[in-house]
Amino acid sequence: MNRFLDLEDLDDAAIAHLLALANDVEARPARQDLAGRVLGLVFMNPSVRTLASFQAGMAQLGGSSFVITPGQGSWGFETRTGVVMDGIAAEHVREGMPVLAGYADAIGVRCFAGGERLDHDLSEPVLSAIAAVTPGPLINLESAVNHPCQALADWKTLDDLDVPRTGRFVLSWAYHKKALPLAVPAAALTMAARRGMAVTVLRPDGFGLPPQIMETAAQAAGFSGGSVNETSDRAAALEGAHVLYAKSWQSPAAYGDADAESALREQHRDWCVGEDWFAPSASDAHFMHCLPVRRNVVVDDAVLDGPRSAVQRQANNRLHVQKAVLLEVLGKGTVT
Amino acid sequence: MNRFLDLEDLDDAAIAHLLALANDVEARPARQDLAGRVLGLVFMNPSVRTLASFQAGMAQLGGSSFVITPGQGSWGFETRTGVVMDGIAAEHVREGMPVLAGYADAIGVRCFAGGERLDHDLSEPVLSAIAAVTPGPLINLESAVNHPCQALADWKTLDDLDVPRTGRFVLSWAYHKKALPLAVPAAALTMAARRGMAVTVLRPDGFGLPPQIMETAAQAAGFSGGSVNETSDRAAALEGAHVLYAKSWQSPAAYGDADAESALREQHRDWCVGEDWFAPSASDAHFMHCLPVRRNVVVDDAVLDGPRSAVQRQANNRLHVQKAVLLEVLGKGTVT
Amino acid sequence: MNRFLDLEDLDDAAIAHLLALANDVEARPARQDLAGRVLGLVFMNPSVRTLASFQAGMAQLGGSSFVITPGQGSWGFETRTGVVMDGIAAEHVREGMPVLAGYADAIGVRCFAGGERLDHDLSEPVLSAIAAVTPGPLINLESAVNHPCQALADWKTLDDLDVPRTGRFVLSWAYHKKALPLAVPAAALTMAARRGMAVTVLRPDGFGLPPQIMETAAQAAGFSGGSVNETSDRAAALEGAHVLYAKSWQSPAAYGDADAESALREQHRDWCVGEDWFAPSASDAHFMHCLPVRRNVVVDDAVLDGPRSAVQRQANNRLHVQKAVLLEVLGKGTVT
Repeated sequence: MNRFLDLEDLDDAAIAHLLALANDVEARPARQDLAGRVLGLVFMNPSVRTLASFQAGMAQLGGSSFVITPGQGSWGFETRTGVVMDGIAAEHVREGMPVLAGYADAIGVRCFAGGERLDHDLSEPVLSAIAAVTPGPLINLESAVNHPCQALADWKTLDDLDVPRTGRFVLSWAYHKKALPLAVPAAALTMAARRGMAVTVLRPDGFGLPPQIMETAAQAAGFSGGSVNETSDRAAALEGAHVLYAKSWQSPAAYGDADAESALREQHRDWCVGEDWFAPSASDAHFMHCLPVRRNVVVDDAVLDGPRSAVQRQANNRLHVQKAVLLEVLGKGTVT
Repeated sequence: MNRFLDLEDLDDAAIAHLLALANDVEARPARQDLAGRVLGLVFMNPSVRTLASFQAGMAQLGGSSFVITPGQGSWGFETRTGVVMDGIAAEHVREGMPVLAGYADAIGVRCFAGGERLDHDLSEPVLSAIAAVTPGPLINLESAVNHPCQALADWKTLDDLDVPRTGRFVLSWAYHKKALPLAVPAAALTMAARRGMAVTVLRPDGFGLPPQIMETAAQAAGFSGGSVNETSDRAAALEGAHVLYAKSWQSPAAYGDADAESALREQHRDWCVGEDWFAPSASDAHFMHCLPVRRNVVVDDAVLDGPRSAVQRQANNRLHVQKAVLLEVLGKGTVT
Repeated sequence: MNRFLDLEDLDDAAIAHLLALANDVEARPARQDLAGRVLGLVFMNPSVRTLASFQAGMAQLGGSSFVITPGQGSWGFETRTGVVMDGIAAEHVREGMPVLAGYADAIGVRCFAGGERLDHDLSEPVLSAIAAVTPGPLINLESAVNHPCQALADWKTLDDLDVPRTGRFVLSWAYHKKALPLAVPAAALTMAARRGMAVTVLRPDGFGLPPQIMETAAQAAGFSGGSVNETSDRAAALEGAHVLYAKSWQSPAAYGDADAESALREQHRDWCVGEDWFAPSASDAHFMHCLPVRRNVVVDDAVLDGPRSAVQRQANNRLHVQKAVLLEVLGKGTVT
C-alpha cells in the first residue's frame, strides 16, 4: 500500500492490519522508523486536527514535515487539464505536485469540494487530478466526498469502545449555520457499513445523501454483512442504537444553490442533538462527531460533556491511525 | 512545575532554578533531553520572537513543534462556556485544546486581550478558559495582561547586566500610534518588583496602570523588599535609575473607547525616549524594550543603537529561558 | 563562504565546489551533518518550492527550520534607516534580523522587488539592508533582482543534461497576465554567461533588460569566454539553440507605471512558447522555466509535457544545490 485515498481501496486484511498497527503505535508511540523521512502536507483548506496530528505523528516517528497552503502562504493551484491559466491559480498541480513529491517521501493533500455542482464534486476532480500526477506515497487529508483518515480513526474508536461489529450505527444530520461538505458523512457511512454494522442515515427530507454515496455504502455493507437504510423518523432510527454519529451537511437536493439550500436548512434548527434524543431506547449509545463542532447548534453541551461522548477518543485516534498509515505507505508497517 | 502561566505562580526557589537552568542551556545550547517530544504552539495573535524562539529552542533540545493559528490557517476558537456557537468561531477550546494536548507533550498558547472591557481582560478570560480544559504542560505565550516568558527573559537580562537586585527600575510609558495591550508593562512591573527593585511607573496622566496590576506588583515588592511607585514627573523618576524599560500601552482610563483613548494618547507624541531622557541623572542606565519597537516613535535610533540598549540581549534570553521552561515542564529540568 | 546572496560573489572554484557537493548530496541524500542546527526562513513573499525544499533539505541533513512570514503570521518589517516608523511596519530589520539570527544557525530571506522604481530595485534595498544587520550565515531566497538558488539549480541542470559549456542559451521573454519581477531573468542570464555560454536575450521591443543587468552578465561572460546579445528576432535567436529558458518579466521601459506597462505587455500575448518555436533550427533544444508557470499563457502544454521540458529536473535540483549551500555556510561542505 503506498496510497491512502479511500478506505474502499483497501481489502479487509489491509484495514485490519492498519488497525492493529494503530493499536501498536498507540501502545508504543515513540519509534524511529521514519528517521530522515519527510512528509509534505498540502492544505488547500483550513485544518486543526489533521495538521497537528500529522506533524506530531511524523515527529514521533523520527521524521519531519513541511506545510504548503496554496492560496495563503502560497499561490493557488490549478487542477483542470488543458486550461489556459489566466485566472487566479499561478501553478498547475501537474508541475507542483511532482515537485513537492520530489522533496518529500510522502505527500498528504486536503482539497475540499467546490460546492457548486454535485456531480462534479462526487467525481473527486481535485483529488483525482492530484493523484494522477503525484508520484509515490499519497494520503487523502479530506477530499470532496471522502475523509479516510477520519473514517479509520472512527473505526478504531468503535473497536476501542467494544461496539459490536454488527451493532446499530445511526448517522444523523444536524443543523449548522453553514452549508457543509459531504466528505465526513460519506466516509463515516461507508466505514460503518464496511465494518458490518446496521447503519441508518437519519436526516430531514431534502437532506438524503446522493445515490452514489448511498450505493457505495450499500455495496460495502453487502460484502460485510451490514445494512444501510435511511429515514427522517428519529425515534425509529435511534431504537436500540449503539452509536449516534452526528454531522451537518448541505442539502444535496439544493446543492450549489445557496438561497434554496439555506431555506431548506433553516427549517431544521431543532436538529441539535440533545440528551432527549437518546431516551429511552438508546440510553447507552455513544455520541460521535469528527470535530470541530458548534456547541448548542449541532449538539448540546450536556451530550458533548457527558459520558456518552467519544469525540476526544476519535480525535486522539486520528494520531494513532495516521501514524499507522505513514508507516505503511513508507514501507515500515510492521506490527512489533 | 508543569504549567508556566504567570511568574507569580512560582516561589523564589522555582524562579531561581529556572534562571540557573537558562544560564546552563545558554552555555550548553545543544542537548537531546526532549528527543521525541512535541510542542504544540497555538497562536491566536501574530508573533515573531515567540514563534521563532520556541520552535528553535525545541529543535535545539532534540524535539519538534507544530503551529496552529486559529482564525488564519485554522478557524477561530470559542472560549466562553454555555454559548450557542452560531458566530465566527467554529471550534470550542473545550474540544480543541484537549485534542491538541493529546497530540503534543506540551502546549503553548498566545491569546491577547480583547481590548473592549478592562475588568474582563484583567480576569484573563481566554487563558483561564484554556487552562481549565487543557491537560498537561501549558505555557503562556502572552495573554491579556501577562507575558511570563518575556518577564523571565527580562529578569535574566537584569542579572546578566549585573543590575543590582535593589536597583532603580523605571517602567516608562511611550507613545505609539496604536492602542497596545497591558500585558508587557504588567509583566515587567511585577517582575522587577518581585526581583526586589525600587520600581517607578512613569506615565502621563490617564495612563496609570489599573489598580489590580499595581496591587499585584506592590504585593510582589512586599515579599521581596522592593517598592512600587508611579509618577508623571520624568526627571524625578529617572533620578539614579539603573534601567529604563519603555513600553507603550493604551489608556486604562479610556479602555475600549477608541476615540477617547486616541485623544488622550495623541497628546503625548513627545513621549519618545531620547538620549536626553538619561542625562545627567541616569547616564549609565540601561534601556530595555520587549520588541517589536517602532523606531523614532517609541524610542530614538540613538538610544536603540547605542551602548545602553539591552534589547538584543532581552530577545536572545527569550530563547534561553524558554528552553529552561520547556525542560522544566517536561520533567527534564536538571542543571548539568 | 558563510553568505549566499549572489552567484557573482563566488569565484569559479567555489561554484564548482557547490555543484560537486550538490551532486554528492543528490547521490547520498541523508546525512546528519546538520544535526541540532536550525535554519530560520523569512518569507516576505509567497513560496512553494523554496519553502518546501529548504525545510525538506534541512530535515534530510538532520536539522530543523522555522518560518516567519512578515505581514501575514507576523507584522511587516521596515528596512529603511532613520525612518519614523508610524506606518504599517511594526518592526525594523535592525532589531528583527539579529534576533532571528540569534535563534538560528543560518537565515534565509525572500524579499521581492517593490516594483515602483527600477533604479531603487536594482540597488537591492531590502536585501542590502538585511545583509547589513544580520550576523552569520545568510541565504538569498530571491531578492529584487536576483535568485542565486535558482541560478545554481539551473547550472546543475545544464550540467546534468550535458549541455555544452559553450552552448547556445536563449533567455526568452514570455507573456503573462501580471507584471513580474526581474529576479529570475537576471539570475538566469548571468548564470548562463558565467558558465561560458553564448547567451541571447529574446524579447519584444520595450522589454530589454536594464543596462545594469546586461552589463553584469556581459562582465560574467567576459571572464568565462561566453557572450551576451539581445534581439527581438525569434528565428535568429533560436538558430542552433541548446536551451530555451522562458520567463515573463515586466517592461523595464515602463517600470512602475502599471497602465503603460500593461499596454506594452498586452501587445505580446502571442509570446507563448509553442513547439513551433523550436522547429526546425532548435529541434533538440531543452525547455527550461523556474516555475510556477501558467500553462498555455507562458508555454503550451505540449512543450511542458514533452521530452524537451527540464522543469522538473530544475525544481528537483533546487533541493540538492540548496543542501549544498546549507552545508557550506554551516561549515560542513566536505564532498564525501
